[in-house]
Amino acid sequence: MKTAIIGRGNVATHLCKAFAGKSEVIQINPHTLEGIPEDAELILICVSDDAIPDIASNLPETKAIVAHTSGSVPLSALDGKGSSQGVLYPLQTFTKDVELDYNEIPFFIEGSSQETEDFLEKTASLISKNIRKADSEERRKLHLSSVFVCNFVNAMATIGTEILSDTSISRDVLTPLMRQTIRKLETMEPRAAQTGPASRGDRKTIERHVQMLAGNPELQQLYSVITRYISNRNLHK
Amino acid sequence: MKTAIIGRGNVATHLCKAFAGKSEVIQINPHTLEGIPEDAELILICVSDDAIPDIASNLPETKAIVAHTSGSVPLSALDGKGSSQGVLYPLQTFTKDVELDYNEIPFFIEGSSQETEDFLEKTASLISKNIRKADSEERRKLHLSSVFVCNFVNAMATIGTEILSDTSISRDVLTPLMRQTIRKLETMEPRAAQTGPASRGDRKTIERHVQMLAGNPELQQLYSVITRYISNRNLHK
Repeated sequence: MKTAIIGRGNVATHLCKAFAGKSEVIQINPHTLEGIPEDAELILICVSDDAIPDIASNLPETKAIVAHTSGSVPLSALDGKGSSQGVLYPLQTFTKDVELDYNEIPFFIEGSSQETEDFLEKTASLISKNIRKADSEERRKLHLSSVFVCNFVNAMATIGTEILSDTSISRDVLTPLMRQTIRKLETMEPRAAQTGPASRGDRKTIERHVQMLAGNPELQQLYSVITRYISNRNLHK
Repeated sequence: MKTAIIGRGNVATHLCKAFAGKSEVIQINPHTLEGIPEDAELILICVSDDAIPDIASNLPETKAIVAHTSGSVPLSALDGKGSSQGVLYPLQTFTKDVELDYNEIPFFIEGSSQETEDFLEKTASLISKNIRKADSEERRKLHLSSVFVCNFVNAMATIGTEILSDTSISRDVLTPLMRQTIRKLETMEPRAAQTGPASRGDRKTIERHVQMLAGNPELQQLYSVITRYISNRNLHK
């Protein structure tokens, strides 16, 4: 199997490494698109969402399957490209120099035909044991979900550590709490796992926290909006 | 060592279990305060923050050290109680029926005298290897930090799973992503670990997400406030 991976970012680089030794992979510069082999079976566009239409329209004529790896771009963005079109969406956060266990990463596939889906499933199975199907609408929701579960979780952790930055306390003290927070989510319903002042309606503590954040109105607003959301949705036990 | 633990909630129950076999522990009903041994060396008030002053003022005369386990209540709330006063604050989320490895839980101690701090350190060391000192001001910040790192992280995970609830996709698919998000935080600076549309200024994706949340104005506001916070604070690489 010969695959051309277009892109130089984190996802492209990670996927090239993951496929190395399992499939013949050529990494292609998205600015020149030079070097795409004529006999490639799969062309995988791994660039930012906004750049996908531009790359797709500049692709040379090809008999390959043309696929992208984006959560939020529909399959239809590739209409008419290659012999058929597909999506191979890895639900994971890719960071330079951070190793990953690909076997556990869920890959969501979609194809313009059953044959294409079978091919993409076979391809993904070279690097992961966790392969599922998702149409463009489901993938859009997976991507939005990942923003909360990954990007916003990281933002909350960042704020949490910054609150300690003017004390002598190292941010390492937060690690056991973060680990346990996530561990609970693996076995409990998230709503049932909710603890803290917002979930138990502890207004005095909430007011004290809002006062502590008075020097940072933006952070104060963020605290209040999330607290109100938890209270209103009654996320408690 | 004889300890009376006042409370019947998650923290009280967890601490009673943790000390069992290592110290003589008696769990006391906070509504009656009956059965506090006259020769107790430590009385540990493990009730909700709001209830601490009331419990403290209703305590019988005692020669014991009187301490509480709250992050946000100052040591001074126990002024004049017992022979001396202290705080033993475990930085962890306690949930019924969820087992914990106490050895890794950080316990933050404060005492009205050096002798009291030494005693509390000795007591905490029966169940944890991670004991530190923190004054009331530092403890207040630890507690606020834990709201972000634990309670708000859990809220983000809850929202993430709810977004998938009207699809056929199981919430289990989010587990590897959540694990990796937290794993990254153990080795990277949280700001450097930030990924996603807000951190890379991907306005088209952000607008699509806001539209997807149009049916839930409260969630839409929450998404926008956190996205703006990440963008403004320039939490990206």
